[in-house]
Amino acid sequence: MSLLVVGSVAFDSVETPFGQVEEAIGGSAMFFSTSASYFTDVQLVAVVGEDFPQEEIDFLGSRDVDCQGLHRKEGETFRWKGKYGFDLNEAITLDTQLNVFGDFHPDLPEDYRNAEAVFLANIDPDLQLEVLEQVKDPKFVAADTMNFWIDGKRDSLELLLSRVDMAIINESEARKLADEANMVKAAQAIQAMGPRHVVIKRGEYGALCFADDEISFAPAYPLESVFDPTGAGDTFAGGLLGYLSRHGQYRPRDLRQATVVGCVMASFCVEDFSLEALRELDHGQIEQRFEKFQRLVNFEPLELLED
Amino acid sequence: MSLLVVGSVAFDSVETPFGQVEEAIGGSAMFFSTSASYFTDVQLVAVVGEDFPQEEIDFLGSRDVDCQGLHRKEGETFRWKGKYGFDLNEAITLDTQLNVFGDFHPDLPEDYRNAEAVFLANIDPDLQLEVLEQVKDPKFVAADTMNFWIDGKRDSLELLLSRVDMAIINESEARKLADEANMVKAAQAIQAMGPRHVVIKRGEYGALCFADDEISFAPAYPLESVFDPTGAGDTFAGGLLGYLSRHGQYRPRDLRQATVVGCVMASFCVEDFSLEALRELDHGQIEQRFEKFQRLVNFEPLELLED
Repeated sequence: MSLLVVGSVAFDSVETPFGQVEEAIGGSAMFFSTSASYFTDVQLVAVVGEDFPQEEIDFLGSRDVDCQGLHRKEGETFRWKGKYGFDLNEAITLDTQLNVFGDFHPDLPEDYRNAEAVFLANIDPDLQLEVLEQVKDPKFVAADTMNFWIDGKRDSLELLLSRVDMAIINESEARKLADEANMVKAAQAIQAMGPRHVVIKRGEYGALCFADDEISFAPAYPLESVFDPTGAGDTFAGGLLGYLSRHGQYRPRDLRQATVVGCVMASFCVEDFSLEALRELDHGQIEQRFEKFQRLVNFEPLELLED
Repeated sequence: MSLLVVGSVAFDSVETPFGQVEEAIGGSAMFFSTSASYFTDVQLVAVVGEDFPQEEIDFLGSRDVDCQGLHRKEGETFRWKGKYGFDLNEAITLDTQLNVFGDFHPDLPEDYRNAEAVFLANIDPDLQLEVLEQVKDPKFVAADTMNFWIDGKRDSLELLLSRVDMAIINESEARKLADEANMVKAAQAIQAMGPRHVVIKRGEYGALCFADDEISFAPAYPLESVFDPTGAGDTFAGGLLGYLSRHGQYRPRDLRQATVVGCVMASFCVEDFSLEALRELDHGQIEQRFEKFQRLVNFEPLELLED
């Protein structure tokens, strides 16, 4: 019942058609931890600079996220600046300042090394491999990645993939990684690289889960109030792995369910800037949203032969 | 239990990443009729030239499609030439030759005028209105349209929309028609123009059905063998309206079910060029594919509070 995440904690400046925000709290590990904290005990590994507000670390503490592995270093926190057009599925990066993240090497506190489940958020695959060398015997490891590493660190990425149970990636990245346009064939090609399970994130179109040879689909809930998709992918992964870690089972049927939980959490995330919509959820709200998802795709058996 | 369709019958020349085909049988009314014929009695209104093969009209006859309204005129049949890249959701039109379709005016045979349900495929909204003036008292009318008419015949299109029960359109067209990026708001804006129900086609991402104020979602089945998406939208509409016409009920719960049937039929369509995969289906195959769709989105209730 412990879930380790390694990734970024950042300041995000984001512009969407609905508004803009400067230096809001963000980063893959921040979204992931917050989302997963509704389901399980999270251990966070990341680095921030001197400018990162203590109250945000206190917020994580209030959600029972273990922040022993969140190091504060001299210098400034990682910053990302991006923009979305009406196609909210694709961010345009305007600026990236690595700052203290530039020479980050994950160093796991001793009691993180027994983590049962691990999420390697989208960072340099060499760093993701460093994490795997420090954990002892995790039951389940999932990793995210992006085009930048698929192009620039292919060998490390392939080594990483050979050692994880699940890849959680965007649709366009899956196509690029597998060099295959058809999504079923792309997922199979990625499975052949190592991970038994592949989850494809499709933004406002939901997510496909290839768990062994079983396919399932979780829709994204059609919302009137989509505001800012930043962090939705990591919030999704947080819900997915948080749910799995809570139950400690990783069968295809659990993955199927977990993928929907991921979409549920992502549907909250996009309703406001930054982490705002994720800060004060309760289980009742999460269950209610889950029921909405069920109603969305609830249909009766088809009977034609009897007619 | 009779379903009238007015649209095009054509020769399609199509190139996809998986192959190409010259002058294959196509056109909105052709795909629609074939698809709907698995569920109900179809009455077809369209025009072909002297070059259109009698055996294809015989094929429709063999599927019990009423072809009284399929006129043969001097000249050549409508031709469309298009190309798909790896993004199979978007066709690039290379050439359109209207030929006999250029001065087409739908003229309904007398016994078509009592049709219970009507599908106005994507043609000039003025022609769609001409059809509505000829039918007596249909229980349910659905219409498709495209960017070309949204830009060029806005007034006629709005008049049409004020007279139909359902709009069935592509996602990008819905955004354009409503001038609204958010899909929930776009659908509501289109409902405000007249149709109580709006179905949004999202290509390989499935379809959203806004039936009165109920939303449902039918996924597209992830296929290894997507070959040619030409006609998938009309095949979808054929399954959807064919199913509704078969049962003669048009409540939100029927529309929800019908949207999935549409996706099932479209999933067959894309597996081969032209109509090929639709020619010899049976109810058993359709039911089996429907069950696959159900399994795709079948998940258990979420229980967090009890833990």
